[in-house]
Amino acid sequence: MVCLLEKYAEYFPVTSKTPILSLGEGNTPLIPLDNLSLKLGVELYAKCEGLNPTGSFKDRGMVLAVSKALEAGASGIICASTGNTSASAAAYAAKAGIKCHVVLPAGKVARGKLIQALIYGANVLAIHGNFDVALDMTRKLADDLGLDIVNSVNPYRLWGQRSGAWEVCDEIGAPDWCVLPVGNAGNISAYWAGFVQYRRAGLIASIPRMIGIQAKGAAPLVMGRPFEKPETVATAIRIGNPVNAKKAMAAVKSSKGMFLAVSDEEILIAQKDLASSEGIFAEPASCATLAGLYKLRKQGDLPKKVRVVMVLTGNGLKDPEIVGKMILSPNEVAAEYETLREAILSC
Amino acid sequence: MVCLLEKYAEYFPVTSKTPILSLGEGNTPLIPLDNLSLKLGVELYAKCEGLNPTGSFKDRGMVLAVSKALEAGASGIICASTGNTSASAAAYAAKAGIKCHVVLPAGKVARGKLIQALIYGANVLAIHGNFDVALDMTRKLADDLGLDIVNSVNPYRLWGQRSGAWEVCDEIGAPDWCVLPVGNAGNISAYWAGFVQYRRAGLIASIPRMIGIQAKGAAPLVMGRPFEKPETVATAIRIGNPVNAKKAMAAVKSSKGMFLAVSDEEILIAQKDLASSEGIFAEPASCATLAGLYKLRKQGDLPKKVRVVMVLTGNGLKDPEIVGKMILSPNEVAAEYETLREAILSC
Repeated sequence: MVCLLEKYAEYFPVTSKTPILSLGEGNTPLIPLDNLSLKLGVELYAKCEGLNPTGSFKDRGMVLAVSKALEAGASGIICASTGNTSASAAAYAAKAGIKCHVVLPAGKVARGKLIQALIYGANVLAIHGNFDVALDMTRKLADDLGLDIVNSVNPYRLWGQRSGAWEVCDEIGAPDWCVLPVGNAGNISAYWAGFVQYRRAGLIASIPRMIGIQAKGAAPLVMGRPFEKPETVATAIRIGNPVNAKKAMAAVKSSKGMFLAVSDEEILIAQKDLASSEGIFAEPASCATLAGLYKLRKQGDLPKKVRVVMVLTGNGLKDPEIVGKMILSPNEVAAEYETLREAILSC
Repeated sequence: MVCLLEKYAEYFPVTSKTPILSLGEGNTPLIPLDNLSLKLGVELYAKCEGLNPTGSFKDRGMVLAVSKALEAGASGIICASTGNTSASAAAYAAKAGIKCHVVLPAGKVARGKLIQALIYGANVLAIHGNFDVALDMTRKLADDLGLDIVNSVNPYRLWGQRSGAWEVCDEIGAPDWCVLPVGNAGNISAYWAGFVQYRRAGLIASIPRMIGIQAKGAAPLVMGRPFEKPETVATAIRIGNPVNAKKAMAAVKSSKGMFLAVSDEEILIAQKDLASSEGIFAEPASCATLAGLYKLRKQGDLPKKVRVVMVLTGNGLKDPEIVGKMILSPNEVAAEYETLREAILSC
C-alpha cells in the first residue's frame, strides 16, 4: 500500500530528506448515503475520517507534522487538545520513537481519546482550565522548552489535512458543497486550501461551497465573538476562540459558503439517524454536519440535487458515553427460548 | 474506491443478481512493525483490521453474508455475539434497511461494542448466559422464525473473511507465519481457506504456518476440551466451545502451525507494548497474537528472520475500560505555567 506522504508527495512539502512515517492514514472510504440522500433530496456522501489509524482526520496532518519534526531533529512534540489531536500526536510519536507531551482540559475530553493518549505512552497533563487556556500554555511551553508544537498552528498539520479534499476530488471530482464541523477551524481551512491547490494544478474546475457547522454553545464563528465558556456534547468542537478563525472566514467567504450553529439535541438526533439509516457511527462533532443539513433543509435553504460531501471527522467509538446517555440500553432477558422468541416477535 | 465485493468478485460467490453493499470494508493497512521486529528478531507486520467500518474484521464476512441475505429476500438477520459480530451485523442491516436481532451475554460484552449495536438500531437481547448458550438459542430462533443467521455458521461469513488473507498476499506475498487470535475459530479457518484458494489460483506458492492464540481461561483448542465457564479480559475470544473447532484444527495441522495459550496479564502487556512502541491500539483479543510471539520467543521457538503477519482483529477503542483498569491515568495539574513546565521537565 502506498502511504499518504508518498501518494501525494508532489503536493506536500516533503523531500528526499524527510523520514516517511505511516500508520496507514488517509485513503478513507467515501460512502454514498442512499437513504439520507433520498430523505434530503440531495446527492450525499460521507468521507469517513473515523477510519484513520487513531480514529480521526487529525492523522493526515499529524503524519506530516511528526515526519517534518523528525527531519528537523526534534526530540519531542507537544500539543493542547480536546482529544483527537493528542491521540494522533501520541501515536505518531510512539511510531517515531520520540516523546509526546499533551495538555488537555481535565474532565472535558471523551474517555476513548484520553485512553488513547495514555496507552500510546504520552505524558498526559490534565489541567483545570479549558482548551483555549491549554493551547495558550502549550505555545509558551513549546517555545520555552524547544519542543515542536503539533497543534494546527503548525503549518504542516493543516497542509497534511488537505489530502482529505484531494481524495474526494480523485474519486468524484469537486462536490458542490463540502460540509465540516468547526472547532478550532483548521480543517475547513485545510480542505479549502486543498481544493484551491487542486484547482491551481488543473485537477478540478471549481471550489465547493464550504459550509462550517458549530455547536450552539461554542459558536464563535457563527456569532462573530469568542465564547468564554464553550459548552457542547460535541467535545471535539468545544472551542470558544478558534486559532484558525481568520483562515476559516476567508475560506467560507471566498467559496460563498456559510457558518451555521446547531443544538446539542440536533447533533445527537443526527448521530442516531446516521448510524441507524446508513450504518455509520461517527462522533457527535462529526454529526453536526448532518444536523446542519437537516436545519438548512427545514429552512428551505438546501438546493435540490446538489452533490454534498459531509466530512465525518471522528469515530463514534471515541465517545461511547454520549450514546450511553441517550435512551439506548439493551433488553435484558432470561436465557430461555420462549422469552427470546417473544422478544423478537414483538419487536 | 472499488469496494471489497467488487474487487474480489471472481473469488467470491457473487453474481449479477447479488446486491453489492459497502461501508468501506477491507483494504486495511498492513503496517511493518520496525520497533517490534527488532525486538523479536523477525520481520513483523500488523494487519490492522480495527480500521474496518465497524472496527473489526467481521465486516469482511458480514458484507457478503448480508448481501447474500438480501439476494435471497431475507426480511431480517440474527446473530449471537461477544460484541464484534453484533456491531457489524447491525451496521450492514441498517445500510440494507432490514431488521437485525442480536443475542449476547449480559454484562460480558465490551461497552463500545454494545453501544454500536444499539446505535445502529438493532434489537439487542442481553441474556443471562454465556456466548455458547446464546449461539445455541440463536440457531434455533433462526430456523424457527425464518431469519438469516449471520454467525460464522453462515458460510458467506467465513468466505468474506478470506479477503484478509488475499490482501496480505497482494501486498507482500504469502508470509511465513500468520498469527491470529482464536475464539470461535472462524477467522483462522477463513485465512487458511483464503491462502489455499490463492494457491490454487496460482497467486502464491506456499501456505503460511497458521498460529492460533487463545486466552488461558478460554483455551479449548489448546487443551483439547471445551471450557464450560470461559474467562478472559479478551472478551472477543471468551468462547469455551468454538463452532469452527474442526476447521481450525485442520488449518493448523495441514499448515504445520500450532495453538498456544497466553495469560490475561501477557495480553495486557502486549497491548500496551504495541501501542507505545508502534502507535497501534488494538483490542485485547488482537494483542493475544503479540503475547503469543513473546512467549514463543522466550521458549526459543521463534525462528530468526521469519516473515510474520499478526492479524489485529479489532480496534482498541471498542474496549476502553480494559485500559482504564490498567495503571494508566492522566496527571492532573493546575493551569499554571510553572507547574506544567515542571511536569514536562521531570518526565
